[in-house]
Amino acid sequence: MKESISNAVIRRLPIYLRLLELKKHHGFEKISSQMIGDELGFKPTQVRKDLSYFGDFGQKGVGYNVVLLVDEIKKILKLDKNIPVCLVGYGRLGQAIADYNLFLQDNMGIKAIFDSNKGKIGKKYKELTIHPTDELVKTAKKMGIKIGVITVPQEHAQEVADKMVKAGIKAILNFAPVSLNVPKDVRVRDLDCIAELRSLAYFIE
Amino acid sequence: MKESISNAVIRRLPIYLRLLELKKHHGFEKISSQMIGDELGFKPTQVRKDLSYFGDFGQKGVGYNVVLLVDEIKKILKLDKNIPVCLVGYGRLGQAIADYNLFLQDNMGIKAIFDSNKGKIGKKYKELTIHPTDELVKTAKKMGIKIGVITVPQEHAQEVADKMVKAGIKAILNFAPVSLNVPKDVRVRDLDCIAELRSLAYFIE
Repeated sequence: MKESISNAVIRRLPIYLRLLELKKHHGFEKISSQMIGDELGFKPTQVRKDLSYFGDFGQKGVGYNVVLLVDEIKKILKLDKNIPVCLVGYGRLGQAIADYNLFLQDNMGIKAIFDSNKGKIGKKYKELTIHPTDELVKTAKKMGIKIGVITVPQEHAQEVADKMVKAGIKAILNFAPVSLNVPKDVRVRDLDCIAELRSLAYFIE
Repeated sequence: MKESISNAVIRRLPIYLRLLELKKHHGFEKISSQMIGDELGFKPTQVRKDLSYFGDFGQKGVGYNVVLLVDEIKKILKLDKNIPVCLVGYGRLGQAIADYNLFLQDNMGIKAIFDSNKGKIGKKYKELTIHPTDELVKTAKKMGIKIGVITVPQEHAQEVADKMVKAGIKAILNFAPVSLNVPKDVRVRDLDCIAELRSLAYFIE
């Protein structure tokens, strides 16, 4: 099943989830694919198709039960499991990303921070201590870290990725503007701010 | 032409460009689609197809001229034009994003920063002064800002987007975890760290 569902669908699920959680918070009980589509700028047919890959959640003419659909999408994304995340690179960007921890519920959260700067090692971010990057493999293994976030300068990104792979991490969110070389069973998502700005330039009048 | 070329292709162009600039820097004269593909994890056929939308740049058996291809991709992305960018929200994330300015050559760069916090207004980031968000429309118009970057908390993102639209900005890079409502001729790219982490969870064993 994993191979047959496109990456694009998987990336839309958290967007649906974000909206549904908001609706749940505001007390909505039902939501139609039309409403979801309107709010997110997707076609209702796409919403229905995306969700139908995973089961038959909607009811014709009634729509989706918001609370149930939140739970279902969380299950699909495995957000009902424990997913410890580590962050490597505690510069300005890393510090900003660590702040997102506030929004990471669902047993997913940044549980370890690493940096190679001696001035930062041993310091605290809230309840977390900054560990030396040299100990990444050992510590991440021990903690069962599942996702690694790379916010180091680009010249160090590959060596950090190598350490993550050694630690058994299979999913990497990479903020460094380089293409990482990893084994096939490791999934890398690049968030390259420069590349995004450059591609947006294309659409300017 | 704009409508017929997919968003995915446009998003790969800066990735090609990043590699080609690196190769140029290292003195490479020629590069094959195979080499490009290997380094970036794409199929060579995809590289050739992507680039062929815009012209006939390669030579069979010889590959692409690195310097020429860098220039061609810059032209396609309009990076040969002047593209002033504004950043709204000078918190931790905004400050981290402002640091990317170092890497934005090609007449594209953050030329104005806005924040609504009185403690920040008037302060300096390098040569830039932090302006009040209230003056966004006026200032962005006057400066001919082409791209807006949103790094404000999610509850303020829509009002900032509205101001950007009023200022005539047609391309927005949005870091806030909300779906922005904008006119059809405005392009929004969402960089939602939480959504990315959540979708990566899907791939974990």
